[in-house]
Amino acid sequence: MLSLRLTSFTHLLSPPSSAAIARRSPLILRRRHHIRQRPLAASFSAQSATAETQDRVNNSKNRVPERVITPRSQDFNAWYLDVIANAELADYGPVRGTMVIRPYGYAIWEAIQEYLNVKFKETGHSNMYFPQFIPYSFIEKEASHVEGFSPELAVVTIGGGKELEEKLVVRPTSETIVNHMFTQWIHSYRDLPLMINQWANVTRWEMRTKPFVRTLEFLWQEGHTAHATPEEAENEAIQMIDIYTRFAYEQAAIPVITGRKSKVETFAGACKTYTIEAMMGDKKALQAGTSHNLGQNFARAFGTQFTDENGVREHVWQTSWAISTRFVGGIIMTHGDDAGLMLPPKLAPIQVVIVPIWKKDDEKAAVLNAALTVKDVLQKSGIKVKLDDSDQRTPGWKFNFWEMKGVPLRIEIGPRDVASGSVVISRRDIPGKQGKVFGISMEPSNLEAYVKDKLDEIQSSLLERAIAFRDRFFPSMLFLVCDSYI
Amino acid sequence: MLSLRLTSFTHLLSPPSSAAIARRSPLILRRRHHIRQRPLAASFSAQSATAETQDRVNNSKNRVPERVITPRSQDFNAWYLDVIANAELADYGPVRGTMVIRPYGYAIWEAIQEYLNVKFKETGHSNMYFPQFIPYSFIEKEASHVEGFSPELAVVTIGGGKELEEKLVVRPTSETIVNHMFTQWIHSYRDLPLMINQWANVTRWEMRTKPFVRTLEFLWQEGHTAHATPEEAENEAIQMIDIYTRFAYEQAAIPVITGRKSKVETFAGACKTYTIEAMMGDKKALQAGTSHNLGQNFARAFGTQFTDENGVREHVWQTSWAISTRFVGGIIMTHGDDAGLMLPPKLAPIQVVIVPIWKKDDEKAAVLNAALTVKDVLQKSGIKVKLDDSDQRTPGWKFNFWEMKGVPLRIEIGPRDVASGSVVISRRDIPGKQGKVFGISMEPSNLEAYVKDKLDEIQSSLLERAIAFRDRFFPSMLFLVCDSYI
Repeated sequence: MLSLRLTSFTHLLSPPSSAAIARRSPLILRRRHHIRQRPLAASFSAQSATAETQDRVNNSKNRVPERVITPRSQDFNAWYLDVIANAELADYGPVRGTMVIRPYGYAIWEAIQEYLNVKFKETGHSNMYFPQFIPYSFIEKEASHVEGFSPELAVVTIGGGKELEEKLVVRPTSETIVNHMFTQWIHSYRDLPLMINQWANVTRWEMRTKPFVRTLEFLWQEGHTAHATPEEAENEAIQMIDIYTRFAYEQAAIPVITGRKSKVETFAGACKTYTIEAMMGDKKALQAGTSHNLGQNFARAFGTQFTDENGVREHVWQTSWAISTRFVGGIIMTHGDDAGLMLPPKLAPIQVVIVPIWKKDDEKAAVLNAALTVKDVLQKSGIKVKLDDSDQRTPGWKFNFWEMKGVPLRIEIGPRDVASGSVVISRRDIPGKQGKVFGISMEPSNLEAYVKDKLDEIQSSLLERAIAFRDRFFPSMLFLVCDSYI
Repeated sequence: MLSLRLTSFTHLLSPPSSAAIARRSPLILRRRHHIRQRPLAASFSAQSATAETQDRVNNSKNRVPERVITPRSQDFNAWYLDVIANAELADYGPVRGTMVIRPYGYAIWEAIQEYLNVKFKETGHSNMYFPQFIPYSFIEKEASHVEGFSPELAVVTIGGGKELEEKLVVRPTSETIVNHMFTQWIHSYRDLPLMINQWANVTRWEMRTKPFVRTLEFLWQEGHTAHATPEEAENEAIQMIDIYTRFAYEQAAIPVITGRKSKVETFAGACKTYTIEAMMGDKKALQAGTSHNLGQNFARAFGTQFTDENGVREHVWQTSWAISTRFVGGIIMTHGDDAGLMLPPKLAPIQVVIVPIWKKDDEKAAVLNAALTVKDVLQKSGIKVKLDDSDQRTPGWKFNFWEMKGVPLRIEIGPRDVASGSVVISRRDIPGKQGKVFGISMEPSNLEAYVKDKLDEIQSSLLERAIAFRDRFFPSMLFLVCDSYI
């Protein structure tokens, strides 16, 4: 039933030791700025589009890539930080523990937002926005809440040049300020359920930080709802963890385990915390989303009451639930490999990259022309496509670069392909010749169908692979329980 | 030319005196919670759908609306605050000067975001995210920047329970931290132009606040770009103020005046500030968006340099530009009237509200059924439609309520309408009988075309009315200059 209690999760939840990472971060950061030259055992020659481009691809430029990623098996954390730096997903902010989310990383977050925003609205939630400054006294109103959050607070003590009379907390989460407002908005049962969500930044003064996984400031959505009955609140908490679960499986291709947190790990102020936990490539678990049944804890602390149908005043029953930019870290650590990032097509900012290949100048125009046509065809059918037509890099360098960025499909077009009206398509998830198919007709309806089909295949294949990996390291019994819940 | 200098703007920019507002805010806030009963000179009887519903509409419930809005002509500021409270656009946060943006107000902001986000991406900008905590020393690096912003800063001095070694500023704007990062990312001319945008919250410790117009914390987008030449930067600054201008005219139906700020009003740290200024219903101007040519000011302060094609190191040329939730205030104050909010269809969260009308219980099913069909037809054609089928309110109360919420079109369906297969449609912008058309066929293609046509008409009509109002109070010469610029 609903009181799933997967106590065996607890051991999974110890965060990966990040002390070592913190120590080596500066080095890793430097690595990016000082280009190192290390020959790469490149497999590009085997991957080039057609024989005529072999020379081009094999030339010396290719053998000296500017980027180096620590092998995943050698040092998982170093690999993780290298991928983030090289794929330009994020960078370190000037304040310790803060992170700048760069465009490519932010685009993954936008894809997450786009999907969840629709689901939240479909299930009756409205977006809104609460101020981030919370009077210090609010945090103290709910006993276990202050205990949980007070060590992690950033506090504003000066405003407009003056010492403030009451210190302000920069929101670590918004239950207190939400309840302060709910108390003013909720009068009768007719005002319930009240179901809202906000996309916002939150601040938690973490000592050990790691990009995406744990940063001083992060982005998230936080849902907050108030209901007339405990059953409704429980159903809502379950509904939202279910939406998160489906999102993880269907969009991120991450086979999370859904369950309930142990008492000690329950959210500070909640009665029950449901969680989705994902297994990373280093076999450590990552809490990837939570949904809390808050009971009447915050309602009592803030006097959030309603008049029921019989005229009796009662406290509301509440939930809150959140997914954050940490999820991007989960995607990197679930699917990435030694070549870098590997993105599930449904969340990839670029689903298909087109690399035109020419040797002689008189081939260039025809190749670029064909590449542009292919781009238009795919774009019109709603596929996120990029044409990398820069002159400054060799095709081999581009192959390497876009593989590292995790783009699911690559289309190669050379002069011979133009002549035969076909293209070469390579899958990111299957390296080398095996993932490469020659002679796919450029004919629009054929090409579109082929690409869409392959993207679906990759999406499924990533999930299957992650499930197999997970099942290899977890007792299958556990999943039977979970699967019945999901 | 580009050096447009509309010095006569300056007198427009003095903010509406908000001291008086601040004094009366608590009263206004209270007004909402203590329902006052004041008979309204209701014109509902004249507006009811068909004769058979007159009784229903005229009944006593209708004459005692729960909401009271101060007439606009009597006290513009009181009217403004009443509209915000009654239409549930926003509420006061617990910290002085902060604002909670409620779902209906936030939905207007989402419509603004949706439009601008597409335009920003079309013009080559990528979204990303910078941390909101900025080392205090950063703010001091650009001389006029610190002078402009230091009186308005919120400062974090405690983190994780400890006094911080360096105080942190909660971003009032992000030029400093952006330049800190740009300096690390930009190496050569190949890295330029660098064009990014972020949607974020910002904090400015304002003493006189007013919902949407001036709050301690607000939401905005801030664009930041770096270029190789001053011409490129100037073109970018102009391009963005042009996008804002088009947005204001075409989406918000606000005939802004585009020009350049005087020296004293130029952004702290910029060389030139372009602005769009809107005239509110009280004939006061509102700065509704700005685009700054920053020259090399921040580049010099932060050492943001690139190597040009000749191998010479040079400072980049930059711009920044922003539109904030203040724009929602501009929409309220441009179009609203004594009945409340009036929203331009293109930004309205609800474009059409359907009010079913029945007297006898045996009429209810047929009326609701027809209302649902109409809703489906409109929804499928992409129109934002709401069916208000609640039992708790009379049709007259609903007419009043949705007019106050500024919904552009109302569809009324009664039993006789069902019998004749038609509906009654009323325009928000034309009160009473004049704005009401009977006997519009329910036939899907006809209804869809009629509604879309009317929404376009209302959009144009709001703009025309606002232009006429503006031109009545401004010297026409001024606009000739502006129009040629726009």
